[in-house]
Amino acid sequence: MTTVAAYAAPAAKAPLERTTIERRAVGEFDVLIDIKFAGICHSDIHQARDGWRPGTFPMVPGHEIAGVVSEVGPGVTKYAVGDRVGVGCMVDSCRECDNCKAGLEQYCSGGGPVWTYNGTGKDGQPTYGGYSQKIVVDQDYVVRIPDGLSLDVAAPLLCAGITTYSPLRHWNAGPGKKVAVVGLGGLGHVGVKLAHALGAEVTVLSQSLRKKDDGLKLGADHYYATSDPKTFEELAGTFDLILNTVSAPLDFAPYFSLLRTDGSMVNVGLPEEPVQIVLQTLFGNRRSVSSSGIGGIAETQEMLDFCAEHGVGAEIELISAEEINDAYERVLSSDVRYRFVIDTATI
Amino acid sequence: MTTVAAYAAPAAKAPLERTTIERRAVGEFDVLIDIKFAGICHSDIHQARDGWRPGTFPMVPGHEIAGVVSEVGPGVTKYAVGDRVGVGCMVDSCRECDNCKAGLEQYCSGGGPVWTYNGTGKDGQPTYGGYSQKIVVDQDYVVRIPDGLSLDVAAPLLCAGITTYSPLRHWNAGPGKKVAVVGLGGLGHVGVKLAHALGAEVTVLSQSLRKKDDGLKLGADHYYATSDPKTFEELAGTFDLILNTVSAPLDFAPYFSLLRTDGSMVNVGLPEEPVQIVLQTLFGNRRSVSSSGIGGIAETQEMLDFCAEHGVGAEIELISAEEINDAYERVLSSDVRYRFVIDTATI
Repeated sequence: MTTVAAYAAPAAKAPLERTTIERRAVGEFDVLIDIKFAGICHSDIHQARDGWRPGTFPMVPGHEIAGVVSEVGPGVTKYAVGDRVGVGCMVDSCRECDNCKAGLEQYCSGGGPVWTYNGTGKDGQPTYGGYSQKIVVDQDYVVRIPDGLSLDVAAPLLCAGITTYSPLRHWNAGPGKKVAVVGLGGLGHVGVKLAHALGAEVTVLSQSLRKKDDGLKLGADHYYATSDPKTFEELAGTFDLILNTVSAPLDFAPYFSLLRTDGSMVNVGLPEEPVQIVLQTLFGNRRSVSSSGIGGIAETQEMLDFCAEHGVGAEIELISAEEINDAYERVLSSDVRYRFVIDTATI
Repeated sequence: MTTVAAYAAPAAKAPLERTTIERRAVGEFDVLIDIKFAGICHSDIHQARDGWRPGTFPMVPGHEIAGVVSEVGPGVTKYAVGDRVGVGCMVDSCRECDNCKAGLEQYCSGGGPVWTYNGTGKDGQPTYGGYSQKIVVDQDYVVRIPDGLSLDVAAPLLCAGITTYSPLRHWNAGPGKKVAVVGLGGLGHVGVKLAHALGAEVTVLSQSLRKKDDGLKLGADHYYATSDPKTFEELAGTFDLILNTVSAPLDFAPYFSLLRTDGSMVNVGLPEEPVQIVLQTLFGNRRSVSSSGIGGIAETQEMLDFCAEHGVGAEIELISAEEINDAYERVLSSDVRYRFVIDTATI
């Protein structure tokens, strides 16, 4: 066991504060990682505030982890001390179900994955996330951060990156395809970069044109305000894929009308409140609505390699640990361009 | 112009009665068809009773038409007098939009297809459907009924057949795939036959086990009652595809839970009342919900050829024209096994 400094929410909705946690001893197949950077994901706030379900407290959020290996167990073959590595939303899974075998560990049907925090490890202990100085993870749930990627801008890729990359790949975003990204926030801005790098024609659909210049710089070909009803007239029947990164409830019907035949609207933001879809608005043109959650471990590695090759990193604001609570408020008011990353040396 | 006997609803919700209508003169590319049989589709009742939108009256329903060619225009190359042919839900479309060019005339974006009845032809006149003795249709919207298929059991294939065949094909129903068909009615019973003939493992999900023997005879491998909560426990995560043929509103959430990873629930029944889906119930396992409407002309021909090859026809109750109003009531109370077909000689 190792005692490690961390930032934790002592109870639901309480401000995060400095504390210490215990990390398990490095097991046969474990990697000890010195965490360098940890991204702040909107879902950290959902969970620290019991937005989805009652959480386990104290809670150390953080599933966008980038660091350096500082110790390996005797059975570890994939990593060595000094390797630059990342950890995303999960740190284990059953490894035996059809989904795990298919590289879709995020959909593990053998009890679900072990989430990086606010979960329960196979040892029965609560898991603690990346707002801390070290973490111990089984090598099979660790990914390599290629040399071309800085650790700070790589950290958010572990959630925001794979959450957008996986559906873009699954729904075949690429040359000749028209992709809309709804919302230009933490997820959306990476989604735009990735869809552009994949070769798709990318349109941002944002509430206003406030971030238009940014959007175009990030790689969008077009930028429309959803507050303008003309947007929906002009773009009717346009998109092969709409990637909705907004976790606030939306009226879906107007978005469905923007899909062309066989188009899909895929939701990666998970609202806290029930969102109603009227089935009838989906009829016509074989349109689909779906959702997607992160990606598997192999696909996460593929995404990082793709990002290194195409120079894709997150746009970040680096903060110290004591700024976390302020950062939470700023995330909630969409006042971040585009991802807060904690310098964990400040914990 | 030809005066033709027909059965029409003189006004919304009024009983259908015998009348006469005018059919246009046979144009250069037109085929005159002596209608032999016309199926009664649930959507005939929706439309004759203004369930979806205000209709055009008098209304001659019927878009499941089987008959014999009795005259052809000078430019007709595809059919000759004496050919056994069918007409489904549409009799024309723009022919120029991307959907029409892709053989998806049912999704014509150039103003939509010309529906077989309750529509407006390119001549500006209202269209009248199959509850009549003759119809004039452009050859490009006529399909051939193969010799192996009797005209009476072929008629319902023109809507019920293609409506289920098209999504089964699009979502890859076949060997190794588990398909559930929700509802064993006019659409569902053909869906079961087709999914079985395509090689899928077929499960019927019906309100009760009342029609279980029928379902198994039609080709289902399994049959479950949705009124039994154990059904949803036992079948959780089972299906690649759920084909929902029920047009009454359903609570979708339990059905989504029956889908495996990447499974789709496809709706071919269109309820009159808005159906609410809670987005959150769709999350997890990249499940999709979609809808599908009939199929294109080429695919309709493919379906008929497939049916002839595999001995698939509708299960029908043949009625005379004067029984139409009673038949409507029986359809609404699910008292038909499984499709009423009008012998149009009785009109």
